[in-house]
Amino acid sequence: MARIVMKFGGTSVADVDRIKNVARRVKTEHDAGNEVAVVVSAMAGVTNQLVDYCRQVSPLYDAREYDVVVATGEQVTIGLLAMALQDLGVAARSWCGWQVPVMSDGVHGKARILEIDTADMVRRMKDGQVAVVAGFQGLGPDNRITTLGRGGSDTSAVALAAALQADRCDIYTDVDGVYTTDPRIVAKARKLDKITYEEMLELASLGAKVLQTRSVEMAMKHRVRVQVLSSFVDAPGTLVCDEDEIVEKELVSGIAYSRDEAKITLVGVPDRPGVAAAIFGPLSDASINVDMIVQNVSEDGTSTDLTFTVTKADLDRAVKVLTDKRDELKFARLVPDSNVVKVSVIGVGMRSHAGVAQTMFSALATKGINIQVISTSEIKVSVLIAEEYTELALRALHTAYGLDAA
Amino acid sequence: MARIVMKFGGTSVADVDRIKNVARRVKTEHDAGNEVAVVVSAMAGVTNQLVDYCRQVSPLYDAREYDVVVATGEQVTIGLLAMALQDLGVAARSWCGWQVPVMSDGVHGKARILEIDTADMVRRMKDGQVAVVAGFQGLGPDNRITTLGRGGSDTSAVALAAALQADRCDIYTDVDGVYTTDPRIVAKARKLDKITYEEMLELASLGAKVLQTRSVEMAMKHRVRVQVLSSFVDAPGTLVCDEDEIVEKELVSGIAYSRDEAKITLVGVPDRPGVAAAIFGPLSDASINVDMIVQNVSEDGTSTDLTFTVTKADLDRAVKVLTDKRDELKFARLVPDSNVVKVSVIGVGMRSHAGVAQTMFSALATKGINIQVISTSEIKVSVLIAEEYTELALRALHTAYGLDAA
Repeated sequence: MARIVMKFGGTSVADVDRIKNVARRVKTEHDAGNEVAVVVSAMAGVTNQLVDYCRQVSPLYDAREYDVVVATGEQVTIGLLAMALQDLGVAARSWCGWQVPVMSDGVHGKARILEIDTADMVRRMKDGQVAVVAGFQGLGPDNRITTLGRGGSDTSAVALAAALQADRCDIYTDVDGVYTTDPRIVAKARKLDKITYEEMLELASLGAKVLQTRSVEMAMKHRVRVQVLSSFVDAPGTLVCDEDEIVEKELVSGIAYSRDEAKITLVGVPDRPGVAAAIFGPLSDASINVDMIVQNVSEDGTSTDLTFTVTKADLDRAVKVLTDKRDELKFARLVPDSNVVKVSVIGVGMRSHAGVAQTMFSALATKGINIQVISTSEIKVSVLIAEEYTELALRALHTAYGLDAA
Repeated sequence: MARIVMKFGGTSVADVDRIKNVARRVKTEHDAGNEVAVVVSAMAGVTNQLVDYCRQVSPLYDAREYDVVVATGEQVTIGLLAMALQDLGVAARSWCGWQVPVMSDGVHGKARILEIDTADMVRRMKDGQVAVVAGFQGLGPDNRITTLGRGGSDTSAVALAAALQADRCDIYTDVDGVYTTDPRIVAKARKLDKITYEEMLELASLGAKVLQTRSVEMAMKHRVRVQVLSSFVDAPGTLVCDEDEIVEKELVSGIAYSRDEAKITLVGVPDRPGVAAAIFGPLSDASINVDMIVQNVSEDGTSTDLTFTVTKADLDRAVKVLTDKRDELKFARLVPDSNVVKVSVIGVGMRSHAGVAQTMFSALATKGINIQVISTSEIKVSVLIAEEYTELALRALHTAYGLDAA
């Protein structure tokens, strides 16, 4: 017997039949003697419709009223799922965010959960009642409805699991787990049985859209064991857990990529103190996030080349901001390039093993792929390469790190 | 300067354009220096869709979860209307039932409002903020969402007006007021400037679907001045108010009809004490409501005929209940008839004037219309006639009581 939180996203509750399917899944866990809380999203498409209404009424809508409108999506789902469970003979009750309550800060539209009072819910769960909880929503300090921002239901589920001290938080989605890399590109990609929080966090922020980054951060902070699994296939998924739970650690757990990058090179920048601040200050003021940065060694001691990346969406604005400052920055040329991809190898094992980066560089060199920028963290090595090599690089690295499925 | 409650039904907020139109109406009252609270229904069609979801999930759905689902309809409208008001520069804030709170009993699906705490709302209204309140919903004793039953938004508005001690409660709808009779049948029907609570109550319960009966009862109890007017036409409507406010009382204010009646005659019922109880007891046990009852004078002192009416929807069940008891009730024949209509003349003036009923009987006799059953109350005379005479009877009575428009 365990206490578990199950979370189902919008595609898993897209219509009445799928809601009934979810009810059957919940019943199975409940019948096994578990205490179960279920967190659900709005039926697929509903939130978009509600957001669209808001935009039609007022382009500059009040975020507090936006929250009132969009929070109804999850409210419909909890009522219907509670009914579907009762119809299967399972005692169930719905909980809106304000009823639990899920206390949040007052930043409407992207609130953060502060505290969840689960006393009443726990009492009812111990009596065998399934708690059906609206994801994505909370109650602000002024007694008004808040929402956590798009994708916030993952965070709701993990926060609830933490508050309930649940044994596990199962995130049901439309993929059946976390893979060593994108299986649409690398046919030999393997589903991972387990992955550490740290690795999942890197994967999540690097574009593997399985879990929302904030939910992984929260799981890591509160040590919530999160399982990612399919709501349509009945099979174990991937457990995101503490490093200690993983007996056989791999050197590299996964290979991620992001096509969302663009590169800017400033050629002939004066090589003097303060030049980096002069360049990145205006970008920061324009809310443009800079990721990788490389400053080349100056050849003549008077000028240097500076290369960095921004998101593709920010590229045009970044070019304009810098061009406007050209007189002040005194660079010779600005070379933008959006035909790049960031490829990263991730693994907690590399903390204690040398040579991980070298394996990457060799594998890419063997395939004739030029590395444009490199950045590293404790558990990650990222390189920027020309976009056309994406598939070739992923396959080569997957093999080089011994990740290919047998 | 006054404090007013404005209520807009589903057709008045059916889409974004109509919500913006409502916002302009509210702005006009607000700009005139009034303190304004607005009560709104769900966008037309939304509640039906939500009810349909519930039925699809579980035919025997839990009323508590039903309330969770259907209450979202009004929640969407309040958020959108608050935004639309803000967009016009009017300070506004939405209020769900649980936020006010509108405390109700725990009879989910058809709850009754117990108390409305308006302290916070009044403070904000005095500061110039328009309160946009979800109709149709409340908060039960167990901190769960309740709904008041279909059409409950009228009741919400009147209850809020009572709690706010509002000067007026304006019910905006798709008709422009209360008429002396159905203008689709009688071309000379006139819009009434004023009507008493008592008369409106009779009209409402007799099928003039302008206001929900419960809302009129509540208005009468708390002496809330209710105005019925069109949300599409800019003109005064009909004021439902205390008798004292009406200087020139008419003998008869309106003529109502209901096609929702069916007649049952039991021929040859033994004429002995207890027979009425023996007949109407089983009908009551089956939750069948009996309206008009006439017992004919017994000719031979041993048997009598009994005629009464039920709703058309209950006719078949009523016939079955009585037929099943035939051995016990010992009637000779049961004659059902659903081709009847109930026509009623209503007016507080008839309290102090004789001859009102006689005018009715004469007018119908002149047109050759046979009266099958008669019932009267202090301010009403109702007759049951063959349905085919509906239009003829309404026009004759409208003329006979001097109600025709000039």
